[in-house]
Amino acid sequence: MAGNTFGKNFTVTTWGESHGAAIGAVVDGVPAGLSLSEEDIQPMLDKRHEADGQNNRQEKDQVRILSGVFEGKTLGTPISLLIENTDVKSGDYEALKDVYRPGHADYTYDAKYGIRDWRGGGRSSGRETAARIAAGAIAVKICKELGISISSESFIDFDNQAEGNSIGGSVEIHVSGMPAGIGEPVFEKLDANLAKAIMSIGAVKAVEIGCGCKAGTMTGSECNDEFILSNADALPEEDELCKEEILKNAGKTGSHYITKKTNNAGGILGGISDGDEILIKATFKPTPSISFEQKTVNAFGKEQTLKINGRHDSCIVKKGAVAAEAMTALAIVDLLFENMHSKMSAVSDFYK
Amino acid sequence: MAGNTFGKNFTVTTWGESHGAAIGAVVDGVPAGLSLSEEDIQPMLDKRHEADGQNNRQEKDQVRILSGVFEGKTLGTPISLLIENTDVKSGDYEALKDVYRPGHADYTYDAKYGIRDWRGGGRSSGRETAARIAAGAIAVKICKELGISISSESFIDFDNQAEGNSIGGSVEIHVSGMPAGIGEPVFEKLDANLAKAIMSIGAVKAVEIGCGCKAGTMTGSECNDEFILSNADALPEEDELCKEEILKNAGKTGSHYITKKTNNAGGILGGISDGDEILIKATFKPTPSISFEQKTVNAFGKEQTLKINGRHDSCIVKKGAVAAEAMTALAIVDLLFENMHSKMSAVSDFYK
Amino acid sequence: MAGNTFGKNFTVTTWGESHGAAIGAVVDGVPAGLSLSEEDIQPMLDKRHEADGQNNRQEKDQVRILSGVFEGKTLGTPISLLIENTDVKSGDYEALKDVYRPGHADYTYDAKYGIRDWRGGGRSSGRETAARIAAGAIAVKICKELGISISSESFIDFDNQAEGNSIGGSVEIHVSGMPAGIGEPVFEKLDANLAKAIMSIGAVKAVEIGCGCKAGTMTGSECNDEFILSNADALPEEDELCKEEILKNAGKTGSHYITKKTNNAGGILGGISDGDEILIKATFKPTPSISFEQKTVNAFGKEQTLKINGRHDSCIVKKGAVAAEAMTALAIVDLLFENMHSKMSAVSDFYK
Amino acid sequence: MAGNTFGKNFTVTTWGESHGAAIGAVVDGVPAGLSLSEEDIQPMLDKRHEADGQNNRQEKDQVRILSGVFEGKTLGTPISLLIENTDVKSGDYEALKDVYRPGHADYTYDAKYGIRDWRGGGRSSGRETAARIAAGAIAVKICKELGISISSESFIDFDNQAEGNSIGGSVEIHVSGMPAGIGEPVFEKLDANLAKAIMSIGAVKAVEIGCGCKAGTMTGSECNDEFILSNADALPEEDELCKEEILKNAGKTGSHYITKKTNNAGGILGGISDGDEILIKATFKPTPSISFEQKTVNAFGKEQTLKINGRHDSCIVKKGAVAAEAMTALAIVDLLFENMHSKMSAVSDFYK
Repeated sequence: MAGNTFGKNFTVTTWGESHGAAIGAVVDGVPAGLSLSEEDIQPMLDKRHEADGQNNRQEKDQVRILSGVFEGKTLGTPISLLIENTDVKSGDYEALKDVYRPGHADYTYDAKYGIRDWRGGGRSSGRETAARIAAGAIAVKICKELGISISSESFIDFDNQAEGNSIGGSVEIHVSGMPAGIGEPVFEKLDANLAKAIMSIGAVKAVEIGCGCKAGTMTGSECNDEFILSNADALPEEDELCKEEILKNAGKTGSHYITKKTNNAGGILGGISDGDEILIKATFKPTPSISFEQKTVNAFGKEQTLKINGRHDSCIVKKGAVAAEAMTALAIVDLLFENMHSKMSAVSDFYK
Repeated sequence: MAGNTFGKNFTVTTWGESHGAAIGAVVDGVPAGLSLSEEDIQPMLDKRHEADGQNNRQEKDQVRILSGVFEGKTLGTPISLLIENTDVKSGDYEALKDVYRPGHADYTYDAKYGIRDWRGGGRSSGRETAARIAAGAIAVKICKELGISISSESFIDFDNQAEGNSIGGSVEIHVSGMPAGIGEPVFEKLDANLAKAIMSIGAVKAVEIGCGCKAGTMTGSECNDEFILSNADALPEEDELCKEEILKNAGKTGSHYITKKTNNAGGILGGISDGDEILIKATFKPTPSISFEQKTVNAFGKEQTLKINGRHDSCIVKKGAVAAEAMTALAIVDLLFENMHSKMSAVSDFYK
Repeated sequence: MAGNTFGKNFTVTTWGESHGAAIGAVVDGVPAGLSLSEEDIQPMLDKRHEADGQNNRQEKDQVRILSGVFEGKTLGTPISLLIENTDVKSGDYEALKDVYRPGHADYTYDAKYGIRDWRGGGRSSGRETAARIAAGAIAVKICKELGISISSESFIDFDNQAEGNSIGGSVEIHVSGMPAGIGEPVFEKLDANLAKAIMSIGAVKAVEIGCGCKAGTMTGSECNDEFILSNADALPEEDELCKEEILKNAGKTGSHYITKKTNNAGGILGGISDGDEILIKATFKPTPSISFEQKTVNAFGKEQTLKINGRHDSCIVKKGAVAAEAMTALAIVDLLFENMHSKMSAVSDFYK
Repeated sequence: MAGNTFGKNFTVTTWGESHGAAIGAVVDGVPAGLSLSEEDIQPMLDKRHEADGQNNRQEKDQVRILSGVFEGKTLGTPISLLIENTDVKSGDYEALKDVYRPGHADYTYDAKYGIRDWRGGGRSSGRETAARIAAGAIAVKICKELGISISSESFIDFDNQAEGNSIGGSVEIHVSGMPAGIGEPVFEKLDANLAKAIMSIGAVKAVEIGCGCKAGTMTGSECNDEFILSNADALPEEDELCKEEILKNAGKTGSHYITKKTNNAGGILGGISDGDEILIKATFKPTPSISFEQKTVNAFGKEQTLKINGRHDSCIVKKGAVAAEAMTALAIVDLLFENMHSKMSAVSDFYK
């Protein structure tokens, strides 16, 4: 248990069931002095709400900040975010309360907890992502302040999909402006944390970094990214001063900096960012709620058929893309903070 | 920093540079009373050592248990594992100490720390996996005691590979005997933790669960796994007693239990194990050390070519498979322990 | 940052400023299947509200459960608790917004964050304890289910206190029914966790376990608690079976069990509970808000005098006692869960 | 379990039994670029070894650094410290292997784990402090680099103690040069972390901060520390610029800074350092090993008398003082690192 918190330095704790009174998140570790209001968060929730669009639930997803902000600035104290559940139709789910829907978490929640809120999927509903997206919007804002921007592109082949059926897809997330040196070897690597962050989104079945699965059929000479230098001519003599300048510029487009000719690495080497663009790919399975008749088993040990009504998206990839951006931001901000005490010189400078 | 510990309940802290005095791991959270000796750990290290085989380093990788075991049983106290570095030839690396090898972590370590042990890759060397494999062997043993077994299969297309070049590949990990109910929603999901565990192995560029990347082009009706029941005839009437029996058997092959017709889910629904086989796929990039001449940049900001000599594997996939088994075991044991207080009835039973 | 979460297995994250919209807590790691409603929590909040009584703030402290409970039972998912701030008079504090009140956290919050919600002490207000007490009430309920009860006694010498001044005091907390074996050496000891839990309550300046400060002037022969046995006559022969029975009864009043003649240890030896009553003493400083004129410095670097009006308790010891009970329960439940995987035999029993 | 790690950013994991092959610690989160060698650590171990002096065990406590240091500088990677157990006389303990020594952890370890290394107290031996002191020496060095120094004074009344008996005592720890702003409200307060750190040392029964237990009988007017200003005359006009300067100097003896007339707070207000000296008091119980005959119970459920021979200190307060300094340093360094991302402006400066 206690699995509802993400992050170590910048932590998000989400809570709430799909058809409960509300859902929300507590974001702790937001540095003090950041300008923040609901207007910084709402657009990302709206983007989620408008994505895909097939879900008829008319949840407004209006976020309220209950703490941690004073006169438009963050206080350094926890920020409590609340989104009320206003358009709840639990009746649709009554018939399903003892049936294990294929592809859903009904059975596993029952197996784990012996009890389950069957209304709208309860805690396992995709609705939970609204809370993490709200929290992620704060991380996205911090990233922006630091010159880091996160975007995504969705890939869905709607031709595959018949009426009443659902369809999967994939999302590519790009992070630009990333400083070099972020990520903590050997278990808290940047890619390892991104993989966890993205895989924790319901429906994600694969996470790739850089060239991803293609790496399996590549040779070293194909896969290795050559390092190149900007403005090589203007460089000073070979001395420590020069090395210092190179490292000072790590991951920045200063006058002398190192970059790579290609980016199969996806911006991460040895679990640490190399200053190049971070490339992540997430594959989403089709949402398991389909209108077709399906065979399954109920909680009383009888095989039965079921037909799912209710309101469901037939594709959650675009919603998933927003969640993936949010999780990427959360993982990155967490590691940006962690990195601040990597060098003794930085610690000394801070406290001098 | 402080990224060298994996796990929350069953924790592994690894340490050591490739050419330092030794490498090792401290394993904390091993329950007391488990039979354990070096003989339980050594075979998994040997399996790693013998894998691939192209590396000429003749490290014996002999593990010593320095604490936590008394008269052949674990004490519940930390187990310190030590592997001495005996066959170290740092001279091979002297020429590379200021060069950023493509595909390696030289540059990113310098960018992060401003200093780097250039001998054999230092901390970023694949040698680090020996420490996590030693620790993982203890997790594997615990799994076995609980009827859980972990195996792997490697896929490498050696036809792709010319002399002096290296080659990537992939590994499929299978976990059988997994109880249902393991994994903590919503951030500490089983698949999320496995993704982090596997992605934290150097050279891994992709992690897939179940049907993985294929999910992206599937429809819901293809991807959903129907639930089926064993011995449906013999089931009692529809009542709570029956439900209780079903859940008691969750993930076990008892007389009445629920399973799935297919396993696109890879044994995980909503981040929680469903009692079916866990299926993970990891893609490894080709090892970046190749004998070909490569272009790169050095720490003094000059472009140069380099040719890597030294002793290197031309394929680390089989070694990687052993590491992947170890990481899988570590992630699973950690979550098995976490799950023990998921139900109040279990807590009450324990303390009654 | 990210310091607003307590616990590892049973975690509480509190949020909220004294004069913000609301305060609250998210409790994660509550086992599923526990009966729970607002009625289980409200009495402990009422007890806090009614304690001491000199504070004229008429906050009703009505708690609402927003998630994690379904049809009267916990779901195993996070429980979000909300207490609205209804009786807020921030105007009283306007005059103090740039003054560093002696004994308060005004200056240190400014030093740390560069910004501070000056209304009613903001996050550093004693009001924050309402959130942890609400969360603690759930821990207290779990303790009760396991036969563990927590009580406290306050000691205040009101004779010391003149009109307009405030007074400190102490609280003794007693935990009975504690099983033996709880606490994790060497850093997560039961006493270490209790010390942190209690010291994290504002105004606490000392924490003692068992004989506490007296231990400093005792000899070993005075301080050692002799072990004694209940029903020694009826014991079987000296064999392993017997040892097993002894240990099975550890900390329980079964037919054969070990206890101690005295309890200078306060129920904890080597950081692990011995089955005896846990004895904790907390010393509270007088609340720093007094009506007397005091000298201080303001944020503009000028010395000035101040006279605090507003609504303040002249003694917060009784309120503190409720907080101390709550924190004790939180620390104990967290370690009770941790202990469930201390023995391999227990893990095997659980998963067999 | 998994209780053998201290800290979040600067973490120490200790391992080892008193009479095992060795004891040690892995220190993770040491910033890169710190000068470090065994010579930085050994003196603190020697100080522990020479303290008290009544223990006849002739352990040399020679520390070896096995990783994390290269060419005299830390790498930012884990530092593995090893101390071999050379002078082990386990025979002395054979007679005690099934007896529960009063005041020791024999019974509680058995109750928790069902197994125990009875040789020299195993993991619960005071010898474990050597490992944390070795780790603490690194934290002490970091503190020194930042201008923070930690010292202690012991108070023991040897007149109380007869031959063969033991005696308790107390230790005052002083931290000077502490910057203001350190400590994370509301659960990770500086005082809360210090209390846990100190209470985790075996034999500590009380922890006090500042005026400590005396606070319980003080009034607010006595206990409050007035703020005063250095060089008030020279201050600029009342404006934001001035406030900024004050805060920039927080905890430093610059030309304009805030301090306190008295220090009942012990340098901590609201869980955050105020720039004043940190004052901690720890009370140690007398070591439970005494030469007197004592009544107790054995593991076979028989009451018996025992007389402890072996080699024991009759007072462990001076050894404890060294451990207390080490734990203080560990707690402080951990929170110094945490504080570096408290303000958005600091984060922006770091990554600009």
